[in-house]
Amino acid sequence: MPTVYDVTTWTVPGNPSVTAYTDIGVVINSIIADVKTQQPTQASKPGAVIYIPPGDYSLKTRVVVDISYLTIRGSGHGFTSSSIRYNAGNTSAWHEIWPGGSRVRVENTDGQSEAFLVTRTGDPRLSSVVFSNFCLDGIGFTPHQNSYLNGKIGVRVGTANDAFRIEGMGFVYLERALVVRDADALSVSGNFIAECGSCVELIGSGQASKVTDNLIGAGYVGFSILAEQHEGLLISGNNIFPRGRSLVHFRNTNRSSITANRFHGFYPGLVDFEGVNRENLISGNIFRREMEPWGPMQPYNNGKDDLYGLLHLRGDANMVTSNLFAYNVAAGSVTPAGATPTIVLVASGANNHVSNNSVSANVAVKAVVLDGSTTGTKVLDSATAAQFQSYSGSYTLRATP
Amino acid sequence: MPTVYDVTTWTVPGNPSVTAYTDIGVVINSIIADVKTQQPTQASKPGAVIYIPPGDYSLKTRVVVDISYLTIRGSGHGFTSSSIRYNAGNTSAWHEIWPGGSRVRVENTDGQSEAFLVTRTGDPRLSSVVFSNFCLDGIGFTPHQNSYLNGKIGVRVGTANDAFRIEGMGFVYLERALVVRDADALSVSGNFIAECGSCVELIGSGQASKVTDNLIGAGYVGFSILAEQHEGLLISGNNIFPRGRSLVHFRNTNRSSITANRFHGFYPGLVDFEGVNRENLISGNIFRREMEPWGPMQPYNNGKDDLYGLLHLRGDANMVTSNLFAYNVAAGSVTPAGATPTIVLVASGANNHVSNNSVSANVAVKAVVLDGSTTGTKVLDSATAAQFQSYSGSYTLRATP
Amino acid sequence: MPTVYDVTTWTVPGNPSVTAYTDIGVVINSIIADVKTQQPTQASKPGAVIYIPPGDYSLKTRVVVDISYLTIRGSGHGFTSSSIRYNAGNTSAWHEIWPGGSRVRVENTDGQSEAFLVTRTGDPRLSSVVFSNFCLDGIGFTPHQNSYLNGKIGVRVGTANDAFRIEGMGFVYLERALVVRDADALSVSGNFIAECGSCVELIGSGQASKVTDNLIGAGYVGFSILAEQHEGLLISGNNIFPRGRSLVHFRNTNRSSITANRFHGFYPGLVDFEGVNRENLISGNIFRREMEPWGPMQPYNNGKDDLYGLLHLRGDANMVTSNLFAYNVAAGSVTPAGATPTIVLVASGANNHVSNNSVSANVAVKAVVLDGSTTGTKVLDSATAAQFQSYSGSYTLRATP
Repeated sequence: MPTVYDVTTWTVPGNPSVTAYTDIGVVINSIIADVKTQQPTQASKPGAVIYIPPGDYSLKTRVVVDISYLTIRGSGHGFTSSSIRYNAGNTSAWHEIWPGGSRVRVENTDGQSEAFLVTRTGDPRLSSVVFSNFCLDGIGFTPHQNSYLNGKIGVRVGTANDAFRIEGMGFVYLERALVVRDADALSVSGNFIAECGSCVELIGSGQASKVTDNLIGAGYVGFSILAEQHEGLLISGNNIFPRGRSLVHFRNTNRSSITANRFHGFYPGLVDFEGVNRENLISGNIFRREMEPWGPMQPYNNGKDDLYGLLHLRGDANMVTSNLFAYNVAAGSVTPAGATPTIVLVASGANNHVSNNSVSANVAVKAVVLDGSTTGTKVLDSATAAQFQSYSGSYTLRATP
Repeated sequence: MPTVYDVTTWTVPGNPSVTAYTDIGVVINSIIADVKTQQPTQASKPGAVIYIPPGDYSLKTRVVVDISYLTIRGSGHGFTSSSIRYNAGNTSAWHEIWPGGSRVRVENTDGQSEAFLVTRTGDPRLSSVVFSNFCLDGIGFTPHQNSYLNGKIGVRVGTANDAFRIEGMGFVYLERALVVRDADALSVSGNFIAECGSCVELIGSGQASKVTDNLIGAGYVGFSILAEQHEGLLISGNNIFPRGRSLVHFRNTNRSSITANRFHGFYPGLVDFEGVNRENLISGNIFRREMEPWGPMQPYNNGKDDLYGLLHLRGDANMVTSNLFAYNVAAGSVTPAGATPTIVLVASGANNHVSNNSVSANVAVKAVVLDGSTTGTKVLDSATAAQFQSYSGSYTLRATP
Repeated sequence: MPTVYDVTTWTVPGNPSVTAYTDIGVVINSIIADVKTQQPTQASKPGAVIYIPPGDYSLKTRVVVDISYLTIRGSGHGFTSSSIRYNAGNTSAWHEIWPGGSRVRVENTDGQSEAFLVTRTGDPRLSSVVFSNFCLDGIGFTPHQNSYLNGKIGVRVGTANDAFRIEGMGFVYLERALVVRDADALSVSGNFIAECGSCVELIGSGQASKVTDNLIGAGYVGFSILAEQHEGLLISGNNIFPRGRSLVHFRNTNRSSITANRFHGFYPGLVDFEGVNRENLISGNIFRREMEPWGPMQPYNNGKDDLYGLLHLRGDANMVTSNLFAYNVAAGSVTPAGATPTIVLVASGANNHVSNNSVSANVAVKAVVLDGSTTGTKVLDSATAAQFQSYSGSYTLRATP
């Protein structure tokens, strides 16, 4: 019983004319059906590997993964910048014009949004599905190439899952790269996810997961990393570059870590908390905010002004410490005009702890601002007296000397 | 001279009836013997790859690895929760019931404890042995499925070693998952090690090693990570979930780092120092302690009470900084009854440095407690005056304002 | 059109007598030529995989990589210590004497310095070239085995590049292991780079790159990690051991992170800044300095004395926080004789921020020293009054109590 499949050598029963090059979706669905046929017994379903060698493959039909222990892997995330190319003018002399590696062109002529949908009902949850080292390329955006819109989703996990791995993948020019609902012990590591509307969306709920060691950069409309109702998520060691409406966005997420990352963005709200988020740690990160330097993207932003904060905090008992904030926006470009930019805004909540942070800025800034609704915030060594502003009477300040 | 072997196609000389499915141990030992035969010359022993495709394999005979540069790799760590299944009642309608991927059932009918023993005497130390991306499944515990006892060890490295890699592996339902003696420059990364009595035990001595980017959770009786007499160990970027007698346990370990991890446990002593440990850094971690929420495990704990500390520190000149401690135990469940729980206990040693930590708790706690034997501890911005207690007269306190 | 090549089965057109064992350089160059022939169309150049099974291969001819999406991968970085062996005396009884795995002996009888040169002119930049999991072995140094000199370079990327990956590689006994010019979104992760003159040199310029989760140790003459004019480089989760003239060397590098690493060295200047470096974050690291314990290397050092600083900082608005410095040098071995060693030297620049660091030392030290040229340095909780020395009148001190 072979358990290692190659998409280029598989013949679809009853449909021998289709190939991985004409519709890799049909091929992979057929392989999954074969795995199920070969592994009929509850007591032995070890799964399989589906290998995608380097090549250009069209995906016209959505893949549905509904078995555990399936690894879909290629040999190369094949990222190249489609954004630079689409904005470059005449590229007829270029060596190559598309992403490469094990590249799946997400075409979805079947009317579906997803290239890969992972879903199963019943018990147990799907376990240990792996996406590794291939490229999901959404090809183009509409109505224009800087919109980040095309309705395409690279991978969507629609039901609760355990011990999934997304590793070494490339995602490019998708409206949504990776969407995972109700993750437990998910690992998203070593990926290259860029020039997508949103990159990593952990929705619904989740626990004990990690997003580590990735290179990520979303479009101006979306999230580089979104976590919704997660508990104990670890976001560490990522280099997250522009653009992204926000680079890390927490929505009602608790006891999670944002540590040792590099954040670079062109708008306020690099890290953005929504709802009530409790007992999160934001430590050891660089936050770099500067102005959009690239002409084609200068018409766009995330709609937030400089009073929003590079870090916009909502919730209780979060700790913000040992971060370096580096702000560089020409005085005339600050919005609202004439405002003093905010670095850390504690927008709501109780007992937040902001300590030992450093701010470097080309203009005068408020390093820490407390909303009138906040209570019990401690601000220690994170703002000079002149850099601190509270609209609440409930706080403790030890100004940076 | 082929150097890539597949366990499913290898025929054991003189024993053609055995297969990887009936005893993968015999097959791998036979392959290793062949590698030795093929590489007789001291000047050229590049080693080999032994590949385990997805499948269910019985290991009845212990494998002994005594050559350098051997990679044993599969295609899938195949974790699923056996603990949930064993406690689930009737699972006859479940899609699948066992772990999967490249799954080795650790049966050891040979009377040995280990699935894999790595050992060699003489010079040089074994180098660059790799275990990658397969599953070691201990199948069940005795006398009951929540005991974490079965005498089985997944991988034991018994002699000094250099540049080993344990990567992308799955270990489940073993009494001891991974035991490495006298490691130098060991890398344990990207693994899923859970529902084992102990997960990672670095014993004897060791230096310049790392345990990074793993998902780990031991049983209530064992260690998630143990390090004994290590120098310069880096434990970073791990998501370590319940349970574990302790999540990181240092025994006479020095100049090592515990940074940017997420710790979640149900008992005191999440990070536990034993003996004399010098100049270690514990920085940027979340420590989450709550009550055991799951009925089947509520009868068990690690025997420690709430005065032990979430962090139990012993040794000299350690630095504890920039950590967030989140404690949530119902007042009536604190032990000893009526006690004020301790968050950081400096239990012994001189010149420890505890600075810039934040504590969130649902009950009044002592954020930092100094044992009467301690001297010269500095406690800065880590406890309010009310949250601090010293039984020693030798310390410096700057209370959190 | 096959896209997966095996060096051991490829026949070089017109030169059938050459094999991967006799000259893997000629073989790989021939495969790259074939990839170009097979992929002539600008619109479809997905690249290929070149696989190197475990074995000993001679590289006599330099490989030139000038296509995107090429993965060159092996099965095993195969590190073993050549330094120990060369200094061990009679090794005739040793089990093996050379590195292994997929081992490329860098011989370069063609007069070139590099084993692999990656270079292309025109548009776009080369993208997504991958070096993975094989060994580049420089074999020996001249004029003696402890010189770290042989003129050999493992991989040199000579032109601007995007999304490259260097992963799981082994480099040993090369004068320069990895040299990358003008990197964008480079990932150097999971490698073992040791006993090379210099290990990772990121030269020219660069942005949004990462060096994470590696084991690295250079010779006394070179850099473990060098970054030149980089923006937003993330160096995190590395275990960097001796020796290295410096372990991390920044030259005019900005907004970059050095977080959660372990640094161990035998000379001053473990982390060394040259030129003007702005808004970098050095957080959560252990710096360990002790004396060279090994006889064969005791004649050598990096020429710096103990006034240089374990951390030698130059530039503006850098943040140094939450680090543990552990210094242990016999009083009689401190240089200049009788000097008080410096831990952190702010050698130049404005507005640097040094906060919340801990120092453990066997002798009296100056924890923070400010050069007379510095202005506006803030030193908070990083030195007792006695451990602080400023030659500048422009600073803020809050001494560690």
